[in-house]
Amino acid sequence: MVDEMKDMSRREALIGAGKIAAGAAIVTAGASSLFTPGKAEASKFPWGYKKITDLQHVGEIAYNAWYGKYCCQAVVEGVLKPLQKSIGGPYASLPLDAFKWGHGGAVGWGTLCGTLTGAGIATGFIAGSEGEKILNDVIAWYADTTLPIFKPANPKGHFKNVNQSDSPLCHISVGKWMKKEGVKFFSPERKERCARLSADVAMKTVALLNDWADGKYKPSHGSNVKDHGVTTQLNCTECHGDDVPEQNI
Amino acid sequence: MVDEMKDMSRREALIGAGKIAAGAAIVTAGASSLFTPGKAEASKFPWGYKKITDLQHVGEIAYNAWYGKYCCQAVVEGVLKPLQKSIGGPYASLPLDAFKWGHGGAVGWGTLCGTLTGAGIATGFIAGSEGEKILNDVIAWYADTTLPIFKPANPKGHFKNVNQSDSPLCHISVGKWMKKEGVKFFSPERKERCARLSADVAMKTVALLNDWADGKYKPSHGSNVKDHGVTTQLNCTECHGDDVPEQNI
Repeated sequence: MVDEMKDMSRREALIGAGKIAAGAAIVTAGASSLFTPGKAEASKFPWGYKKITDLQHVGEIAYNAWYGKYCCQAVVEGVLKPLQKSIGGPYASLPLDAFKWGHGGAVGWGTLCGTLTGAGIATGFIAGSEGEKILNDVIAWYADTTLPIFKPANPKGHFKNVNQSDSPLCHISVGKWMKKEGVKFFSPERKERCARLSADVAMKTVALLNDWADGKYKPSHGSNVKDHGVTTQLNCTECHGDDVPEQNI
Repeated sequence: MVDEMKDMSRREALIGAGKIAAGAAIVTAGASSLFTPGKAEASKFPWGYKKITDLQHVGEIAYNAWYGKYCCQAVVEGVLKPLQKSIGGPYASLPLDAFKWGHGGAVGWGTLCGTLTGAGIATGFIAGSEGEKILNDVIAWYADTTLPIFKPANPKGHFKNVNQSDSPLCHISVGKWMKKEGVKFFSPERKERCARLSADVAMKTVALLNDWADGKYKPSHGSNVKDHGVTTQLNCTECHGDDVPEQNI
């Protein structure tokens, strides 16, 4: 209970920081050419959050950003662009192009799906260490959910199949989907699939952040490290076959 | 040749941006309480770079940061803290605590080693899309090199073994090392190994960035996606056994 109250007051402080930042944004967006260091209060870390109610708009931002910037930056843009407008302050001066490198599981190495790298970056700025719980839940949801779900207002492409990855790795997620769809990596279908997936991850991240802002968020996924004694996914047999090493906590 | 010249002038422009930022930092670090929007030139993206000559110091920053902030933030600090001092500007107001989430392959999911997420974040701010080549080379080096190499001035712990991961995945890299060392994840040996590894990745990233600043950098690793038709590591048989899917470009 004490911990819950501590969490609550911390959360409120963060959301409050967002409000301060929003005020500062109004000041800096004005015609004044003066900026007093006192207003630098706006960039206290974490940068805070203001609820984003139009989830479909978040999805559209991410979906459209994918074409040109790819998965990681798409999710960063889906989550942070609305905050650049509503809060301004430090968000407004953050160059979102800095986060393109996460595409294809880090410049094409097929590791963490860039959408999840994007979710980590966004929640890191918004909520600092509290964002880790949200990211943990977004990753678990990604692995357990049949994706993509998002339907863009103006689709740039089409495909037939959806799939559950059982893994947050780009290589496994997109590889399974490519096999099911029967298409190659550089096909328009694969691009459209990843663009819509980016929308889904941005929307899920915002949905959890909204719950957090409302005080309704409860972390649902546990600690992989504590449960398994090593940093890990939960699809052990997929690579190890039947020869899964014993837990080594 | 034309491309090389284009690269060269772009690189010089970026390094120039660093110099402008350094100038702006002097202005903002002074006693003046005025900040004119004209000086916002400093936060043009990418944020640029100024050579960091003391690599051992970079390693020490990352090594010490690991204890408390873990791998991802350790590398971000090793690379960006020197730039916060030498360039200032946008680097100085970037909250490095925003990047802790990358630990353990993203909040413990064992995906991209947090040191490499940190390298991606740092090179992203410094060099934008040009940073992708550097990150690509750092990842390839990580997988191919026997690590850790770094020896801290004041070691906080000790261990016996070093290893080559053949993979940028935290789970594979640390799992192989734990098996070789015969220790558990929460052991002091494993912590010390990851702290020193963080130093190595920060130092390698800075070494390549220094070459880039000098105009001597030549990307050495190719494109995994273009070579293999899917985002991937290069240790295919490690998970697929002999049943490696054919290339599907």
